[in-house]
Amino acid sequence: MSLFLTVVSVNEATAVIRSLAVKGGEEFVPLNEALHRVLARDVRSDVDIPGFTRSVVDGYAVRAADTTGSGDAIPAILTFRGRIAMGTAVGAPIVSGDCIYIPTGGILPNGADAVVMIENTEQIGGEVLIKKPVAPSENVLLSNEDFSRGEVVLTAGRKISAQDTGVLAAAGCSEVPVVMRPKVGIISTGNELVPVTATPGMGQVRDVNSYVVGAFVQEQGGLPVHYGIVRDDRDSLSTAIKRATSECNAVLVSGGSSKDDRDIVAAVISETGDVLVHGIAIAPGKPTIIGKCSGKPVIGLPGHPASAFIILVAIVRHLFTGMTGNTAAGIRTLPATLSQNVPSSRGREDYIRVIVKNGVATPLFGKSGLLNTLVKSSGFVRVPAGSEGLETGTQVEVVLW
Amino acid sequence: MSLFLTVVSVNEATAVIRSLAVKGGEEFVPLNEALHRVLARDVRSDVDIPGFTRSVVDGYAVRAADTTGSGDAIPAILTFRGRIAMGTAVGAPIVSGDCIYIPTGGILPNGADAVVMIENTEQIGGEVLIKKPVAPSENVLLSNEDFSRGEVVLTAGRKISAQDTGVLAAAGCSEVPVVMRPKVGIISTGNELVPVTATPGMGQVRDVNSYVVGAFVQEQGGLPVHYGIVRDDRDSLSTAIKRATSECNAVLVSGGSSKDDRDIVAAVISETGDVLVHGIAIAPGKPTIIGKCSGKPVIGLPGHPASAFIILVAIVRHLFTGMTGNTAAGIRTLPATLSQNVPSSRGREDYIRVIVKNGVATPLFGKSGLLNTLVKSSGFVRVPAGSEGLETGTQVEVVLW
Repeated sequence: MSLFLTVVSVNEATAVIRSLAVKGGEEFVPLNEALHRVLARDVRSDVDIPGFTRSVVDGYAVRAADTTGSGDAIPAILTFRGRIAMGTAVGAPIVSGDCIYIPTGGILPNGADAVVMIENTEQIGGEVLIKKPVAPSENVLLSNEDFSRGEVVLTAGRKISAQDTGVLAAAGCSEVPVVMRPKVGIISTGNELVPVTATPGMGQVRDVNSYVVGAFVQEQGGLPVHYGIVRDDRDSLSTAIKRATSECNAVLVSGGSSKDDRDIVAAVISETGDVLVHGIAIAPGKPTIIGKCSGKPVIGLPGHPASAFIILVAIVRHLFTGMTGNTAAGIRTLPATLSQNVPSSRGREDYIRVIVKNGVATPLFGKSGLLNTLVKSSGFVRVPAGSEGLETGTQVEVVLW
Repeated sequence: MSLFLTVVSVNEATAVIRSLAVKGGEEFVPLNEALHRVLARDVRSDVDIPGFTRSVVDGYAVRAADTTGSGDAIPAILTFRGRIAMGTAVGAPIVSGDCIYIPTGGILPNGADAVVMIENTEQIGGEVLIKKPVAPSENVLLSNEDFSRGEVVLTAGRKISAQDTGVLAAAGCSEVPVVMRPKVGIISTGNELVPVTATPGMGQVRDVNSYVVGAFVQEQGGLPVHYGIVRDDRDSLSTAIKRATSECNAVLVSGGSSKDDRDIVAAVISETGDVLVHGIAIAPGKPTIIGKCSGKPVIGLPGHPASAFIILVAIVRHLFTGMTGNTAAGIRTLPATLSQNVPSSRGREDYIRVIVKNGVATPLFGKSGLLNTLVKSSGFVRVPAGSEGLETGTQVEVVLW
């Protein structure tokens, strides 16, 4: 392995990782468990929604024309023809001059074409005074006004929101076709690593990346499979990667932090597969590896947790977009004004952690090994490869974590 | 029950619902399962992070003063004293004129105070040419520079992010003290409701709210407990509410959609407890009920799914903030420019669903019974109670779903 990496641009790296993503198969989950899953196919309604013309208010079903010109001073006077019970259709149609009490959700009777809200009426014996005119279709929801039978209510690739579960319910989708969650193997390498439950001795650090990577995988809709801490020797790592690629859809190896360790990761991937990218023109996170073993993507993340996290958000995210088929996979951004100059190097994309408050983005220039800048920051600002920096006052888009 | 509700302001309703929230107790979960849970107490590190002064690059450990003035043309020449293995401390201290190879993460030897990146060096036999000066502490992370032993790394009330799991790992927090998830009973009332698996007959609609409410509860960190569809009669509803309040921390009753149904919900709450709010100056969602039975909050949501969802996001959210103790419980907002006039009524807060694209918020003036405007919209714009509307071009904060 040579001392200097042959770096590719962020765009090239993204294209490579995207090309490795295999979209998961389809499975069906109960609607109650579908939140945040990604739809595997378009879902169509099996009925008209609603299935009948219904009132959206409590009031009187009328012929709209009978209410024209009515007001507080000169109300229209209609004949009270009784009350509609919820869920019941009325036999006799409403004719001109008639009205009938209808609850919210009630079936609009034949002959009626609108509903006057009860607040705008007054019933006096067998007569109802209408004090406000209504237009045809006012205060009613027409049959299939929301969705028609057979119409697509939500499209493939949509990440199901809370509201979406309501549309799926209305459409009769009690078992939801979703993309299977990718199983993602997580390996931490490094002779200096000890488990969280251990007290680190001199020169040792706790395994931070397994947790950060695992939580990121969960957030991206994947199932983390932990393979623990693997020592920095070829045999152990090779065994772990082979097992993980056979059991998972993708593998994320983090660390080691030193060049020697990284070289071992790259060497092991080369032995069992191909190293496609070794080095990305990005800071932090340059020594990232993108490889492929047994047809599965194997990503070598930087050892520094903060660098690893940037690479997850900036690059590895696209792997999940591909594996889950989530078409709207969103980075969330927030516009802000930069509070101070951010120097950068031409030729690489710099990802600067920032705190955003009241529309102002303040850079956190911590060393990339620090965890505290990672948890204090709101997200990052990208300085493009062609730029030598961003000046104070620049309008930036902050990518939120 | 009177025809007209005695409405309270959104702020009053929020204060009432907030006063009903009882923060959950503490439980411990494994760090791998702590993502998005809320910390029940401050977490302190049991060690210095890092526990030793370490290199953050691959290179040579030096005395910074020895590199002063060095450059490509006139490098400083230091004596090579071997290599530091990962996790190993060096016995003999570095003295002036010496250097030692150190990997990223290696323990900085005594006597050294900085590391020169390997890219800025050249080893020739027993000598190393240093081609770029370093300042003291450059490329090293000092012992406890990140966090000190005993220091609070994350505070109570924080919703744990992916990055946070890394800090917890470093701090030795393998079992995380989190606030117990509130169990939230969900009841749908309405004689017109049928389950999702049924095909609605004339006048019937599928139970949409159970799913929307359940998914919302999940997103807010609660555990939904479904009590199904309950008919609109006092006995059935009373039995269901009593059971739900005895088994859960809060109960959300949705519908009925008509005034008669709402009156039943309010009457049943009155019988077994207190109705504290019946009617909020908000549109949609006016006929919301906030009550208390057996010391537990019982909320009556509007029957229209779209109205119910607005009430969940605008009002009920605060109940979860209180129950989970999530101090940063965030609504996400996005600044945008309004694309057209939004008329409103003075005296109530209007929540207008909008689509946001490229910084422009376009109102969706659908009927509140429509599901499709709910799933098409990005969120809502609030028109304050004191305003008669918002004009085209107004800068608004869109509350994202």
